[in-house]
Amino acid sequence: MTTRVNQNRLWDSLMDMAKIGATPKGGSSRLALTELDKAGRDLFVKWCVDLGMEIYRDSIGNLFATYPGKNRTLPPIVMGSHLDTQPKGGRFDGVYGVLGALEVIRTLVDAEIHLQHDLMIAVWTNEEGARFSPAMMGSEVFIGELSLEKALSIKDRDGISVKDSLEKIGEIGSAPLGQKFDSYFELHIEQGPLLEDLDREIGIVTGGQAIVWLDVSLEGRSQHAGTTPMRYRKDAMLGTAELLIKIEDYIKEIPDALLTVGEIGIPNSSRNTIAGDIKLTLDIRHPQTEMVQDIMLKIKELVKKTATERKLESHVTDIWLSPAIPFNPDCIDLVRESVSELDFTSLEMISGAGHDAIHLAKHCPTTMIFIACKDGISHNEAESITQHDAANGADVLLHTILKRDHQ
Amino acid sequence: MTTRVNQNRLWDSLMDMAKIGATPKGGSSRLALTELDKAGRDLFVKWCVDLGMEIYRDSIGNLFATYPGKNRTLPPIVMGSHLDTQPKGGRFDGVYGVLGALEVIRTLVDAEIHLQHDLMIAVWTNEEGARFSPAMMGSEVFIGELSLEKALSIKDRDGISVKDSLEKIGEIGSAPLGQKFDSYFELHIEQGPLLEDLDREIGIVTGGQAIVWLDVSLEGRSQHAGTTPMRYRKDAMLGTAELLIKIEDYIKEIPDALLTVGEIGIPNSSRNTIAGDIKLTLDIRHPQTEMVQDIMLKIKELVKKTATERKLESHVTDIWLSPAIPFNPDCIDLVRESVSELDFTSLEMISGAGHDAIHLAKHCPTTMIFIACKDGISHNEAESITQHDAANGADVLLHTILKRDHQ
Repeated sequence: MTTRVNQNRLWDSLMDMAKIGATPKGGSSRLALTELDKAGRDLFVKWCVDLGMEIYRDSIGNLFATYPGKNRTLPPIVMGSHLDTQPKGGRFDGVYGVLGALEVIRTLVDAEIHLQHDLMIAVWTNEEGARFSPAMMGSEVFIGELSLEKALSIKDRDGISVKDSLEKIGEIGSAPLGQKFDSYFELHIEQGPLLEDLDREIGIVTGGQAIVWLDVSLEGRSQHAGTTPMRYRKDAMLGTAELLIKIEDYIKEIPDALLTVGEIGIPNSSRNTIAGDIKLTLDIRHPQTEMVQDIMLKIKELVKKTATERKLESHVTDIWLSPAIPFNPDCIDLVRESVSELDFTSLEMISGAGHDAIHLAKHCPTTMIFIACKDGISHNEAESITQHDAANGADVLLHTILKRDHQ
Repeated sequence: MTTRVNQNRLWDSLMDMAKIGATPKGGSSRLALTELDKAGRDLFVKWCVDLGMEIYRDSIGNLFATYPGKNRTLPPIVMGSHLDTQPKGGRFDGVYGVLGALEVIRTLVDAEIHLQHDLMIAVWTNEEGARFSPAMMGSEVFIGELSLEKALSIKDRDGISVKDSLEKIGEIGSAPLGQKFDSYFELHIEQGPLLEDLDREIGIVTGGQAIVWLDVSLEGRSQHAGTTPMRYRKDAMLGTAELLIKIEDYIKEIPDALLTVGEIGIPNSSRNTIAGDIKLTLDIRHPQTEMVQDIMLKIKELVKKTATERKLESHVTDIWLSPAIPFNPDCIDLVRESVSELDFTSLEMISGAGHDAIHLAKHCPTTMIFIACKDGISHNEAESITQHDAANGADVLLHTILKRDHQ
């Protein structure tokens, strides 16, 4: 099985798509359900129609292009990702998964290979969440975890709803939500530094990690910076500093645990007033749900202990717990076998970021394939991959699909 | 010398003044140069005129009321403070210094005591700085450190200038700026916790402490919270936490040093993004200018060292250095003697906050007298003092003035 994708054709398509909403610093800006998003979808549809693929859309605007199989009673094998971007996004996040899948089908067409299953490309609506929250909206509605009615009513900052935006660009279709899939494979850039740093060609993705979001507040006493001796203070800022160092010391001892303090603020702050109140966010991640729960409990203890020692009040609010999502072992095995056949170096890893595949994993056998991105940079105009890596990833996807079809 | 002020009359005047701009939670709101500030000044002027005092104003609206002395060629002994308040200020900050001085003169009038010197009450314009920046504007213009022209041109948030505001309320006068004073005594609430906590009646204030304001920024790398292993991160927030603990450990070893992190922020922060950039302010104080400079240098070293260890970039910007202002030893001695005669408990202390007296100390022999305020709370509607302490402070002021007149 030596069929390989066409590296130049894949790259040219990526560069052609990147022209739509191109930004000055070499990125792309196609916010979900805007005219530019529509233009990107239209270019993709044109390419699919040129291949004789069937096009349809569902009621949240998810776009499906099908390369018909020999046995159309079988559920489709599905590849996909998204074409929408961050406001100043890169050229590859999402787009690579869609156009890598397109390159797989172009390669099959060239080689006159016809599968048993329909082979479908899914372009999910509003994966980024930059215009309409939540992110991964299209796939969440598709699997039934977010109601269509609620999603359609969500508005952007200008008060324009998802429904109105979909109607305006003509992307509402009549295909059923939640149709049966044989399996789902998403090709994506890593959006982290590991593959590049360890010099591996392919990331074999075994699942999505568990995530906990906490809001923490520490309350001390807001007093005058000049008249309050240090020993009289209840300084919420210095208490927070101590807390964060304790949490960091603890987290560093747990392999694969991640801790991020993304936001911090002192309400009504002023330069010469002791911080009486601090609010901060904690993002905690680990590949195992149980571990992230243990970490959460330990962090809550540390908050309480530090606050007590510093005579502060503390409050911790649970904002979100997203359990770990293991991908399908059979699908992962197919990726492993393809990587091995193609003689690529690889790394078994979890998906640190959210992807439509995290939702699809609850719907059908699912996995992902990663390639390196330069310096781990994503959601940024500087996002960069090599043509060679792009082709390698698409080759793994192609071979994985062929194996799945033969199972 | 057993002359004492009238506790009830002083308290009644404080309560009458507090009715002007009274706030729902028991505070006062008389922003500088508003109609309410004017109403407060008018009530004060009425009380002074009832005592036969002479009233005049200078070109920045500082208001002076004079109880004529026997030898009018001598420069006046001056008492004073301010009548403007924070937006939701207390009833005593500034007001107590003005009405305590008024009570001193009422007591002298009752006792038919006439001094050699003119005895003057100064009501300084815009001490709070809440509407027009900088604070202590009237006294700074008076001593010639801020030009009249510049001060008059300063505007509030609505674009209204000091000049227009002064004209509107009719508080511009023709008295000369910077006239010679024999001495200046300012009675004030402590605005800190020491007198109450140590159960002392009078604060003998030996000077104002040195202040340094620094802006610190730490720059790391803004990356995805889910895809960046801890060892790859350049986390400006955790770097800041370590820095603050190091600074706190250092500051705690230096008696009388104060450190406050009043403001902190992560520009473009989001919950699932590692802090790539942190900005914070440091307020450093110590009674000695040299010490505050040493502390500043050491803190700059700690910033650099911590940043280097954490692979962060760092920048420290000097915003302000205000040297320590020692008060006049003779004036301080007169306060000490009065406290001793009156058999009050006392504490020798520095003024942690800014006051008009800090400016006046550069103009003439100056000192301050403090009384306790409940829980050290100030700039707050909850600001509270006892009637007894209020009278004690005014008694010390009275006796100090009598001693000064006889020197």
